[in-house]
Amino acid sequence: MTLVVVALGGNALLRRGEPPTLEVQESNAFAACAALARVGASHDLVVTHGNGPQVGLLALREALVGEGDRAPLDLLGAETEGMIGYLLERGMRSAMPDRAVAALLTQVLIDPDDPAFGSPTKPIGPLVSGDEARRIARERGWSMAEERDGWRRVVASPVPQGILELEAVRLLVDHGVVAICAGGGGVPVVVRSDGRVCGVEAVVDKDATAALLARQLQADALVLLTDVDGVYRDFGEPDEQLVTDVTPETLAGLDLPAGSMGPKVRACLDFVSATGGRAAIGSLDAAPDVVAGTAGTQFRRS
Amino acid sequence: MTLVVVALGGNALLRRGEPPTLEVQESNAFAACAALARVGASHDLVVTHGNGPQVGLLALREALVGEGDRAPLDLLGAETEGMIGYLLERGMRSAMPDRAVAALLTQVLIDPDDPAFGSPTKPIGPLVSGDEARRIARERGWSMAEERDGWRRVVASPVPQGILELEAVRLLVDHGVVAICAGGGGVPVVVRSDGRVCGVEAVVDKDATAALLARQLQADALVLLTDVDGVYRDFGEPDEQLVTDVTPETLAGLDLPAGSMGPKVRACLDFVSATGGRAAIGSLDAAPDVVAGTAGTQFRRS
Repeated sequence: MTLVVVALGGNALLRRGEPPTLEVQESNAFAACAALARVGASHDLVVTHGNGPQVGLLALREALVGEGDRAPLDLLGAETEGMIGYLLERGMRSAMPDRAVAALLTQVLIDPDDPAFGSPTKPIGPLVSGDEARRIARERGWSMAEERDGWRRVVASPVPQGILELEAVRLLVDHGVVAICAGGGGVPVVVRSDGRVCGVEAVVDKDATAALLARQLQADALVLLTDVDGVYRDFGEPDEQLVTDVTPETLAGLDLPAGSMGPKVRACLDFVSATGGRAAIGSLDAAPDVVAGTAGTQFRRS
Repeated sequence: MTLVVVALGGNALLRRGEPPTLEVQESNAFAACAALARVGASHDLVVTHGNGPQVGLLALREALVGEGDRAPLDLLGAETEGMIGYLLERGMRSAMPDRAVAALLTQVLIDPDDPAFGSPTKPIGPLVSGDEARRIARERGWSMAEERDGWRRVVASPVPQGILELEAVRLLVDHGVVAICAGGGGVPVVVRSDGRVCGVEAVVDKDATAALLARQLQADALVLLTDVDGVYRDFGEPDEQLVTDVTPETLAGLDLPAGSMGPKVRACLDFVSATGGRAAIGSLDAAPDVVAGTAGTQFRRS
């Protein structure tokens, strides 16, 4: 069987505007896994996922306790890997009762000298007032950035360099186990010169980690599933048009929308350029067709 | 290599009286893993662990948010598996840089008709007043029990019947990966008649799950590590005495202390009776000697 690495958008479990209850996330997880099971019926499968809404909710809870008791971002990321891994594993087991499934805690190695640490850009946690933001910046040394309705902490988004659990993931996949891993892009860690593995308060782009994982596992395809049908030319305009095929050469003519599509496109191009394999961006609901190459935006090396 | 299943007490990461900060838990995790690495140098290793203090802290945070937004116990258990799995995996990787390590989300199958549901006994979450306890019992249908300083929710502690991720754990162990799993006794689930896997608000005894795991993996030894040297005769009395060897026959003459030692002894006897393998209870600091059979309380079938 061919190996497909699938990345679920953070909104696969919690869509924009939905109340962040467990019932909603459970129901969405079961629906997402029903779609993925149709892929898993004819492919080996690795499932990665975002954690934006969930880590945001945990950060809100942390904001309610005393500062000294607050858990750092790497620990919250590990908690969401447990929580979302649980929801997705239950979903996959329910949809594929005859298939073994395992969710792995995943750590991603980053470079402590990554230039991203010089200009943190990834907003996390609750909105605060300008006064509060200045106090936090002074007392805790955090970078704070202004948004439309207030200020939020921003952290670096360094490039993923390696996946500590790669060998375990490969072993599981080679034996037909559906592996759920690299949630939220993986918990970012560095290895100190004395060998100690240490967490870092940063957020690794989940699509970049999915591309690295797909490359290192020598997957046949990388498939990024989200809530839109694919990459659009002139997105939001009356004459918007789904782009069905992209190569590095045709990309130059595309005017990509801002937001999360840029990192997705980069992850796909990165994977196809490095491996010659296939990559695609498409809608979760059409997952089997996106994997088959008949829906969404398909990326090839040339 | 022989396979050893080790269960770390909940206080391996947070000892009684210690402040529940991340620094303390990290430091304890590194120390615990340094001890376990000495076992892992000459044995295949599965590490399970408690989650009592950690799930208690998460429950305290949940108590700060609106009732409708509170996460149920199974989800909190999954979060602690991610969090503690992360701390222990980092610890094991730091102590054994050449060994692959993986932490797995683990679900444990229980019987929805387990008699434990008729008499919930396991206290969880924060203390509340008597009035509050009566209100919660009325509104949410929870069982509340009085303790010395207030009331707490009590949940059932059903018997673990199976481990959903057994195949994945076996695969990892068979290939020399140190597997961290079954944290907090595993997240309790039931499989509905339509095949859907559903979480249950209960707590499975972690030593009972460790014994089941050791039995199903056909481990050579089950070792329960805690903060005392083993099982004591007349514990706390001037003439207290460490019991070095136990068989089902000699057990009858022992007057076991109340508290957590009972479930540990039962788990060990269960394992040795079912398999003829070795089991032991001892101090984390003496882990290699407890595994070697030269420290702690050793259990044999006869």
